[in-house]
Amino acid sequence: MVKKIGFIGLGVMGASMSSRLIDAGYELYIYNRTKNKGDALVEKGAHWCDTPRSVAEQAEIILTIVGYPKDVEEVYLGRNGIVEGISEGKICCDMTTTKPSLDIAIAEKLREKGAAMADAPVSGGDTGARNGTLSIMVGCSDEVFRELLPIFSVMGKNITHMGSVGAGQNTKMANQIVIAGTMCGVSEALVYGAKAGLNLEKMVATISKGAAGCWTLDNLAPRVLKGDYEPGFMVEHFIKDMGIALEEAEKMELSLPSLALTKQLYLAIKAEGHGRKGTQVLVKALEALSGKEIL
Amino acid sequence: MVKKIGFIGLGVMGASMSSRLIDAGYELYIYNRTKNKGDALVEKGAHWCDTPRSVAEQAEIILTIVGYPKDVEEVYLGRNGIVEGISEGKICCDMTTTKPSLDIAIAEKLREKGAAMADAPVSGGDTGARNGTLSIMVGCSDEVFRELLPIFSVMGKNITHMGSVGAGQNTKMANQIVIAGTMCGVSEALVYGAKAGLNLEKMVATISKGAAGCWTLDNLAPRVLKGDYEPGFMVEHFIKDMGIALEEAEKMELSLPSLALTKQLYLAIKAEGHGRKGTQVLVKALEALSGKEIL
Repeated sequence: MVKKIGFIGLGVMGASMSSRLIDAGYELYIYNRTKNKGDALVEKGAHWCDTPRSVAEQAEIILTIVGYPKDVEEVYLGRNGIVEGISEGKICCDMTTTKPSLDIAIAEKLREKGAAMADAPVSGGDTGARNGTLSIMVGCSDEVFRELLPIFSVMGKNITHMGSVGAGQNTKMANQIVIAGTMCGVSEALVYGAKAGLNLEKMVATISKGAAGCWTLDNLAPRVLKGDYEPGFMVEHFIKDMGIALEEAEKMELSLPSLALTKQLYLAIKAEGHGRKGTQVLVKALEALSGKEIL
Repeated sequence: MVKKIGFIGLGVMGASMSSRLIDAGYELYIYNRTKNKGDALVEKGAHWCDTPRSVAEQAEIILTIVGYPKDVEEVYLGRNGIVEGISEGKICCDMTTTKPSLDIAIAEKLREKGAAMADAPVSGGDTGARNGTLSIMVGCSDEVFRELLPIFSVMGKNITHMGSVGAGQNTKMANQIVIAGTMCGVSEALVYGAKAGLNLEKMVATISKGAAGCWTLDNLAPRVLKGDYEPGFMVEHFIKDMGIALEEAEKMELSLPSLALTKQLYLAIKAEGHGRKGTQVLVKALEALSGKEIL
């Protein structure tokens, strides 16, 4: 069993995921841009490293979950990055939701040094990270998948090997594209129902039983009805994901008009100062469009 | 127990619904624009009437399920229509998916003659109509709802009294608005995944377990993957419904940009000759937008 795992990125997700790995008996080598976010893990026995390069030098399998594509790029390809420290036989796994094409480019750099790459973005949010119930969408070779599976099992439940590097990210993008659609549908239905004077609890309960049924209606519509716009998943992260999907689609010469519109609506809601609210705040963009408080 | 029921509109839905009412022991007075669609019901004992007016004269409760708003208008308000034949104490119930404002206007005309109105659009398609498992969204007074409930129970399962006349239609509109969103999300995700080279069966199976989960992904995506574009629900009917929702929203000074875009995409797919295909054919509009066969 691989013992030495590197873990880079100790945000809300990374902190819980790495903590579970320590509990499962792995020796962790950690790095984060803001050092004090590693303090709790160091107390639990993790080794602090001053650079991603140092993590790559000491660990056998290096996991990353950072923020934006530029952060992924910096951690892997930047000065004192992973690629500088990596060596033959090691495996890197990017769990950030990022550009498929970026993870594919990183895989190439790693291959030149005899190391392997996987992309494995997750869904399930902070709760899933804490409870080890994340969905993990994986792109890598069969061999690398076998190596990583025991580690993934500590962090997630629904673990799917989707294909070669990039396939994990593309699956996550498909996931976000569906969510963009359901968010629009549910949000527009809520403002319509409110304006038409319907009892919205009753409306949601009724339509969720049929062809309109969806996770968003079951889980986010009730939050809207309570006026709860706190983040499960944050507007600015969703904007990032939609931006990546649209950029990748453009590279593939694919027009996705509905996703493009949804991103614009979320940009509007961010411009109103709701960037760190939950995605269900989309109803507020629709209210603004019609110039009135509806919900 | 009310015995004499009028039934106007013997299309795919109406034929099954009225047949179930006969089986349940009701005496039916039927009318349809195309007479021979009533033949099977007459053989089962239904009384043919030559006009909606005649139905209204003979039956105590009159159900209607026709096509477009203009058909509802004609059947109720036209020459030899229901309003001409109706009298004190009778109840009409429009089960067509139509304009809330139209059913409200009809209710007013009926009230002048001492008769009551309900709107009760359904969802669940031809299968639901055949098996008596429709969802029925009802708008009317409490008293009228109590009168109609035994009759609804023969045709449906999920029966909700949403409020006064118009509330049934508005709930159905909210239902269709959510579906418009999920159709866009799922269709764009499918063309994205296909173009990215993902195994689409695996992709659908994986993402349907999380926040992207929806009825459309579970029920229509598999049809697309089999190249099955036969109608569960027809494109041209969906265009009608979206048109009604947008028109009603406009009356309420409500902007629904995502629904408006979805309607445009469906108009494009209808223009390509797919008006009588199932709503899942939306992927073909996205293929056309990008000028290539993808799925």
